[in-house]
Amino acid sequence: MTGARVVALDTDDLRFPTSRQLDGSDAMNVDPDYSAAYVVVRTDADDGLEGHGFAFTIGRGNDVQTAAIRALEPFVAGLDLDRTLADLGGLWRHLVHDSQLRWLGPEKGVMHMAIGAVVNAFWDLKAKRAGKPLWQLLSEMRPEEIVDLVDFRYLSDALTPTEALGILRAAEPGRAERARHLRVDGYPAYATSPGWLGYSDEKLATLAREAVANGFDQIKLKVGADLGDDIRRLQVARRTVGSDVRVAIDANQRWDVAEAVGWINALAPYDPWWVEEPTSPDDVLGHAAIREAVQPVKVATGEHVSNRVVFKQLLQARAIDFLQIDAARVAGVNENVAILLLAAKFGVPVCPHAGGVGLCELVQHLSMFDYVAVSATLQDRVIEYVDHLHEHFQDPVEIRSGRYLAPSAPGSSAQMCPETFALFRFPHGREWQATADGATT
Amino acid sequence: MTGARVVALDTDDLRFPTSRQLDGSDAMNVDPDYSAAYVVVRTDADDGLEGHGFAFTIGRGNDVQTAAIRALEPFVAGLDLDRTLADLGGLWRHLVHDSQLRWLGPEKGVMHMAIGAVVNAFWDLKAKRAGKPLWQLLSEMRPEEIVDLVDFRYLSDALTPTEALGILRAAEPGRAERARHLRVDGYPAYATSPGWLGYSDEKLATLAREAVANGFDQIKLKVGADLGDDIRRLQVARRTVGSDVRVAIDANQRWDVAEAVGWINALAPYDPWWVEEPTSPDDVLGHAAIREAVQPVKVATGEHVSNRVVFKQLLQARAIDFLQIDAARVAGVNENVAILLLAAKFGVPVCPHAGGVGLCELVQHLSMFDYVAVSATLQDRVIEYVDHLHEHFQDPVEIRSGRYLAPSAPGSSAQMCPETFALFRFPHGREWQATADGATT
Repeated sequence: MTGARVVALDTDDLRFPTSRQLDGSDAMNVDPDYSAAYVVVRTDADDGLEGHGFAFTIGRGNDVQTAAIRALEPFVAGLDLDRTLADLGGLWRHLVHDSQLRWLGPEKGVMHMAIGAVVNAFWDLKAKRAGKPLWQLLSEMRPEEIVDLVDFRYLSDALTPTEALGILRAAEPGRAERARHLRVDGYPAYATSPGWLGYSDEKLATLAREAVANGFDQIKLKVGADLGDDIRRLQVARRTVGSDVRVAIDANQRWDVAEAVGWINALAPYDPWWVEEPTSPDDVLGHAAIREAVQPVKVATGEHVSNRVVFKQLLQARAIDFLQIDAARVAGVNENVAILLLAAKFGVPVCPHAGGVGLCELVQHLSMFDYVAVSATLQDRVIEYVDHLHEHFQDPVEIRSGRYLAPSAPGSSAQMCPETFALFRFPHGREWQATADGATT
Repeated sequence: MTGARVVALDTDDLRFPTSRQLDGSDAMNVDPDYSAAYVVVRTDADDGLEGHGFAFTIGRGNDVQTAAIRALEPFVAGLDLDRTLADLGGLWRHLVHDSQLRWLGPEKGVMHMAIGAVVNAFWDLKAKRAGKPLWQLLSEMRPEEIVDLVDFRYLSDALTPTEALGILRAAEPGRAERARHLRVDGYPAYATSPGWLGYSDEKLATLAREAVANGFDQIKLKVGADLGDDIRRLQVARRTVGSDVRVAIDANQRWDVAEAVGWINALAPYDPWWVEEPTSPDDVLGHAAIREAVQPVKVATGEHVSNRVVFKQLLQARAIDFLQIDAARVAGVNENVAILLLAAKFGVPVCPHAGGVGLCELVQHLSMFDYVAVSATLQDRVIEYVDHLHEHFQDPVEIRSGRYLAPSAPGSSAQMCPETFALFRFPHGREWQATADGATT
């Protein structure tokens, strides 16, 4: 034990003016400015290591998100560092179960995402101190240690600690072989960049062609604003990529139930692989009704699902074919471990949401952990890939032949480059001062 | 048209040190400091009227909630006042559908409650300008105007605008008679004050006896921390109030599904009227399973239900016998109108959550509107009543013979007294400076 302590949470409101190019535009998010409410865990340890994490937002309100992270500083400042990192399940419960903060959710929205950012920053620090990438650190934990990360409150009707232990133990044989496989071949990805709603048909075709040439065997198109446009764009995509490449569609919560069913069935002739977020992320029963009515088109959701309790119900209600975790929506690594275990219990493949800023960097670790230590399979698994903003990260994702290469640097890949802060801090960073175009003000 | 404009949103972080007496203590909320993230809509109109509203929290994080409200100022500052007040459905959509802010929920947690506070403040202002209490203002609107307040997105599989209109038209005859009845007899209430978990058996018995003597025919006990204690306390309550007074129990989300079923069935011999919040407010399917297994004990929930989409599912899944709206959890009057209409469609009585600080003041208007213009009945309807902190309001609730008297002052009863701000502003108000006991820091 070093006696080192947690000293502070430093926060930053970072925003990137992505709305200028309509990068990331879809039927609900018409002009996102990808943003990070960023946190650094500072300690007084001799090693000089910091834990980095962030919540992802799309612009306005990133200041509120940052304030929520700052409100957590009194909960961690002064904690014994070794003891805290040795029991991140305990840290999770300390933050999530604070009775007063809990009122602000409970377990959802701004305060829950803030806890996620802080929990993830501690995981980043733990992995750095261990000298391992996060996926490897997690994958080498004993099943009992992994179960101990999870809060089973509200889950036990679907998954007990004993069942979780059984899943993890069943995956123990072959861990080393699968980790080797990841280091050689990486993890399958799919490409969203061709399909933003704001792009022209020509840009869509060009980017789709490039994606296939680069080794992706799945792309995704945003839909939901205009049915005629969607049919035309899906035709363009199918013509461009042929019938062997999977084309997923993503409505970003645009529809009511009946509208979703009609719209999806109108697009079914173009063989969409899955339809993503057909309606409200809170609507478990709505997703179940839609799934029933649009088969064989599959249903995927998760990037806006608030917590493990809603994921549990999506699985119980057989409402989804693919579960899309997000690294920065729920309360960090621990809650995503719970969700991976739930998905494994129900036999539903996890295909993470990524993109934004840094979501690819973060979530790859969770899918790789899932493969090595939980589901033990890559069957029908793909991580979303979007080729934006990776240049801001010290350890950016590497994609080769349509696959994420396994990170090897210690940590969670969350840490941004020093010059990024000077440029994109809102509203006083040089990029915002220079333009002052008011995009997010 | 006056040409007046909205000038600003003024905010205050107000906290009351209720944890010192264990007022409000329950199995999940062990030491609440009832708090209000308070907002005043200021205009440049000659009438000098302001709109008051607030989000309710229980202490830590009230600064984050206040920051979220402040983040909405750019959305309303400069708006034409007459036009805004004439279309509060439009204001709701303007705030809730902002694509960037939406990412922070969507439609839940800190940002959604902030929108609720602001929307409610505009309703307060509208009612003041009309010279009417809010319940009356709402009850006198035409059915078409009421339907126009509601955003039916994500609701149409359960309730269409046409159905909503039908419900409101069916209730039109008799509006005047019911309003008269409210002015004479008030609206039924039940008493929670006897049952806080931190109170001794003697205090419980004394307060229960007083409640019955004061005309209440329903009380409520907090349960869920220890089964032996719960059995003993329920025995004390039953012995004190006899078999004709309803005794509800409230677990404040303490249990998993199986645990809830076992615990409730162990308390069933003491004839609890309803069990409230047996598990996570997000767990629609869990509530449905519990309800099925504990009949004839009834199930109630809602104070932590994030939005109309979750309420819709609780009704669709037949998961609740009583729907408990909260005036400050969802996005204000408009969303609660949607929820009242959903409850009417499914024939489920609405029995609001209240207490905290100001929740009784706010929610009485919604139940009275429900009675006059929506459900048209008082059958099995009761509004929670807790006798704390009413002295801070300019137009406090009045209870007589276990009933809420109909407010007659213009507005929504949200406005606090000037001296309250000087005393309870956190952390610099005189009450916090004087004690500096760190209860919420």
